[in-house]
Amino acid sequence: MSQTTDGKVRPRHAGRQDWSTWPQYNAAASGFAGYWYPVTWSSHVTGKPSAFTICGEKLALIRDNGTVYALHDRCPHRGVPLSLGEQQFPGTLSCPYHGWTYNLPDGRLCAVITDGPGSPICGKVSVRTYPVEERLGLVWVYIAIGDEEPHPIDEQLPAELVSNPFVLGGRIQPRTGNWRFACENGFDEGHAKYLHRTALWRLFKPMPAWNITSIVAKGRWIYRVQDEVHWDADFPGVGRWSNKRWWKANPPDTTFNIGNTGAAKKVDPTIEAQQFPGFASLSMPGVLRIAYPKFIHYEFYVPVDADNHRYVGMMVNFTKGWHTARFYAKYLGVIRWLFHGQFSGQDAWMVDVTDAPPEKLYRPDISLTAWRNLAEQETTERRASADAKDSHS
Amino acid sequence: MSQTTDGKVRPRHAGRQDWSTWPQYNAAASGFAGYWYPVTWSSHVTGKPSAFTICGEKLALIRDNGTVYALHDRCPHRGVPLSLGEQQFPGTLSCPYHGWTYNLPDGRLCAVITDGPGSPICGKVSVRTYPVEERLGLVWVYIAIGDEEPHPIDEQLPAELVSNPFVLGGRIQPRTGNWRFACENGFDEGHAKYLHRTALWRLFKPMPAWNITSIVAKGRWIYRVQDEVHWDADFPGVGRWSNKRWWKANPPDTTFNIGNTGAAKKVDPTIEAQQFPGFASLSMPGVLRIAYPKFIHYEFYVPVDADNHRYVGMMVNFTKGWHTARFYAKYLGVIRWLFHGQFSGQDAWMVDVTDAPPEKLYRPDISLTAWRNLAEQETTERRASADAKDSHS
Amino acid sequence: MSQTTDGKVRPRHAGRQDWSTWPQYNAAASGFAGYWYPVTWSSHVTGKPSAFTICGEKLALIRDNGTVYALHDRCPHRGVPLSLGEQQFPGTLSCPYHGWTYNLPDGRLCAVITDGPGSPICGKVSVRTYPVEERLGLVWVYIAIGDEEPHPIDEQLPAELVSNPFVLGGRIQPRTGNWRFACENGFDEGHAKYLHRTALWRLFKPMPAWNITSIVAKGRWIYRVQDEVHWDADFPGVGRWSNKRWWKANPPDTTFNIGNTGAAKKVDPTIEAQQFPGFASLSMPGVLRIAYPKFIHYEFYVPVDADNHRYVGMMVNFTKGWHTARFYAKYLGVIRWLFHGQFSGQDAWMVDVTDAPPEKLYRPDISLTAWRNLAEQETTERRASADAKDSHS
Repeated sequence: MSQTTDGKVRPRHAGRQDWSTWPQYNAAASGFAGYWYPVTWSSHVTGKPSAFTICGEKLALIRDNGTVYALHDRCPHRGVPLSLGEQQFPGTLSCPYHGWTYNLPDGRLCAVITDGPGSPICGKVSVRTYPVEERLGLVWVYIAIGDEEPHPIDEQLPAELVSNPFVLGGRIQPRTGNWRFACENGFDEGHAKYLHRTALWRLFKPMPAWNITSIVAKGRWIYRVQDEVHWDADFPGVGRWSNKRWWKANPPDTTFNIGNTGAAKKVDPTIEAQQFPGFASLSMPGVLRIAYPKFIHYEFYVPVDADNHRYVGMMVNFTKGWHTARFYAKYLGVIRWLFHGQFSGQDAWMVDVTDAPPEKLYRPDISLTAWRNLAEQETTERRASADAKDSHS
Repeated sequence: MSQTTDGKVRPRHAGRQDWSTWPQYNAAASGFAGYWYPVTWSSHVTGKPSAFTICGEKLALIRDNGTVYALHDRCPHRGVPLSLGEQQFPGTLSCPYHGWTYNLPDGRLCAVITDGPGSPICGKVSVRTYPVEERLGLVWVYIAIGDEEPHPIDEQLPAELVSNPFVLGGRIQPRTGNWRFACENGFDEGHAKYLHRTALWRLFKPMPAWNITSIVAKGRWIYRVQDEVHWDADFPGVGRWSNKRWWKANPPDTTFNIGNTGAAKKVDPTIEAQQFPGFASLSMPGVLRIAYPKFIHYEFYVPVDADNHRYVGMMVNFTKGWHTARFYAKYLGVIRWLFHGQFSGQDAWMVDVTDAPPEKLYRPDISLTAWRNLAEQETTERRASADAKDSHS
Repeated sequence: MSQTTDGKVRPRHAGRQDWSTWPQYNAAASGFAGYWYPVTWSSHVTGKPSAFTICGEKLALIRDNGTVYALHDRCPHRGVPLSLGEQQFPGTLSCPYHGWTYNLPDGRLCAVITDGPGSPICGKVSVRTYPVEERLGLVWVYIAIGDEEPHPIDEQLPAELVSNPFVLGGRIQPRTGNWRFACENGFDEGHAKYLHRTALWRLFKPMPAWNITSIVAKGRWIYRVQDEVHWDADFPGVGRWSNKRWWKANPPDTTFNIGNTGAAKKVDPTIEAQQFPGFASLSMPGVLRIAYPKFIHYEFYVPVDADNHRYVGMMVNFTKGWHTARFYAKYLGVIRWLFHGQFSGQDAWMVDVTDAPPEKLYRPDISLTAWRNLAEQETTERRASADAKDSHS
């Protein structure tokens, strides 16, 4: 890629075959450590522990006295998952096998029921704990690099979700396929117009046949910008193709920049994500943001292992009071089924069957390469600053 | 094996433990390239693409304007199977993900729907195509060695099926087990008499207890010849065993050569396969032919991968006009269920559980070793002539 | 471990991480050869062969004229399992594929049905046979080290089961998890009080909160002895825990030695296993014995492969005549469901999820380390004496 004077990124060459250009991205089959990841809905974490795998780490999540804790889901005694255990004392979790009891805040072995109060091993063993936060109705876990301290989660969340009032509706699904294929699918400029041509969601949202696209970097985010939008295409010697159907919403009558859709309509000026430059943006560690005029859709691609990820899809409306009722009606009546259901299901299908590298990239894949560059760059910088810290301590 | 003056092959020694005697056969777990293979019924290949694996090659089959085409079932862009795609333009197939559109005859990328008419990658990418023919109501694909040209399919088909009128009934089944076990099972002199002793098919066709067998090579085919046929056996110190049962057809009253069954009864003298020498014959790349007086049964053992094959069984009757009705009645009423069903199912069962080498061969396995020699010899010759061609070009 | 003057074994240190201390035990993932193993109920072995895997060895079991025989379950011809075959002659088993017929007592190929009486391979091939005995209503197979002769099975059986009259009820279940985890679970001093706290079996049998335990070796067996028994525990800063529940049997009012339970009540003085020192004992190759006052419970952990074992649980009552009816009523009415069912199912659950090493042992695991020492020691001695024999022959 080459950064040009107007700040836009344009492809240098296509036909790339492997991922050697992005060594750290290539190695991140199980995700990048050093980030907060959403795991499940807050309401699903109770006093009965549950098991999750995030970035290859096995976690036991449990809620105690209102607070959620995450422990490494393996009792050091005999390797039994603590998530199969129960709580015998406040602030603790006990392994189901021998009642080894761990202190939730620090994972220290604080009692061994079957060895009595004087058990000599107490305090000599502990399990790893993971920082936990609750935001947006979700439980977030920090997967640390080594024993680093986590950065504040609000620094990582999309800014507009930290300070504004909003309502949201969403879906969490375990999905097959590597998280990178899911993330690349989400930001991928190319596929939506073709893959989703049959989605009923298109009743409301027209899509072109093809675009000329560029990518703009802005803070932690990269934005997809449509410089040209074409609603029909005439392929010499092959035929004519159009995305127009009688049952789909009609496209606007000009070749305009979708990036300005938002600006064109009345949107809350306080929501920066809905202004220039583009309606689709992406940030590490795999967060997609689609800014519609009336609400913003987010997708978090949470790494589980090399072959699985968790899809967290959220539709957010920046409103409060009785307006929230209108949103819920719209979400439960339409969005949940057409967008977070059928439409997103088509993506899940492709993510499951994608198999790369080897690969041959084409012009619209500028969105993929820009994302991979972002991941590579941010990771490199984080490593550098971490090493710097170490050398000072 | 040793070729004797009378042209018959007799075993040199048994107790063979591995397949090192047949290095190329030993290496052909996924089949031999350089042959035509039947894939499925012609009627099953339509405008909606379907996926098959032959000799380890993933294929997408589609019918366009009456003609069947085979493409390598992987889009070079992101590795998505083209068999999941749809046809957007005549003579093409489009990948479901981004609408990369391939020209069916030559596999050239002729349009990229989501990148517009001027897409720079067009013509720079293509997928491998496979020669396709339709014969006997089946779609045949040629798995080439490198980029060689295919030989005419009629050279490979059993001669009597090229020039004569006939009717056929058959079955195609995906089966577990390596194709070589299936092929060896088909030509195996030894097992039928014992394994199939309970098959209802035996109501019509008697089988001996044991034979003295020899193998005769004739053109591309090797024939099994019964020099002796024994209907009972007395095993010293063990007991007496006979294949006669009240419900089975009675054997002929002499120890005769089954190879002459055909000759004995009136058979169409134009069908060479029904004359001398034997009623069971085999040819590369795994085609079995059983010449009954009134019809010929064929089995094609199509390699899928090391652990799977496709069984293609066909009963052919060389007749036309209203006689065909009689054959269909016979096939649908009896043959399909007793022969292509129960009887063939017993073979499928054994093929699934066969596990060799190591192995210990016995006298009747002369049929196996002759087949392996044939495979080894024909492969060696083909390689040699191919190398010769290369050196001349 | 260290043997002290009073003959008791006490732990030297905990926190052990791997099994390198017990090299032969560590290597015995598929079990120890050189022992008799119970395979299935005698009544389940008939003239129709059945297949089992013991210590990684595939066996075909068949009953002929009242006697049970075990053959290696693979025909040397083409690798087909003999357990799929049928009996064609008395005293033999025939492979289903080509009728290769093996002599049951010695596994010699005595007839090849499809090659006639003069088959030259007869007597040149044979399959391995395994010594078989029937005891306690079970079929036992000896897995030999090399070609050694088996020791008498009665030397290996619990002594009290050889000479006394008794009745028994039991269960055999294929279970997931390595046999060593099952065996360690069975003798494990620690888990029962906590894991089984919810078992209805506790209606009849109280369990403490924790013990001080030591291990006593006696002949081929090691015994678990409770030096102290505590029914409640107060964990500083954590809380109080007790095993007492209104629905459970009340514990005796003193901190007594469960090892003397038996002695305390009237038990048949001829049953040595019910005397001092402890009520739980273990012997190679994985036999657990729990001596209740009125009956003895046995568990045999039979290795299948690295990930599977067979659980053989038996409740034995040393009585005869009409008393046996009382026992059967008790077993079928209660024991089978509460003890061999729910209670034992909790163990199966833990055995399935245990994953060690790495591990961190604690004070009660003296029972595990003593068992591993026993296995290591007995194996070493057997090897030594075997080598001695060899050098003399």
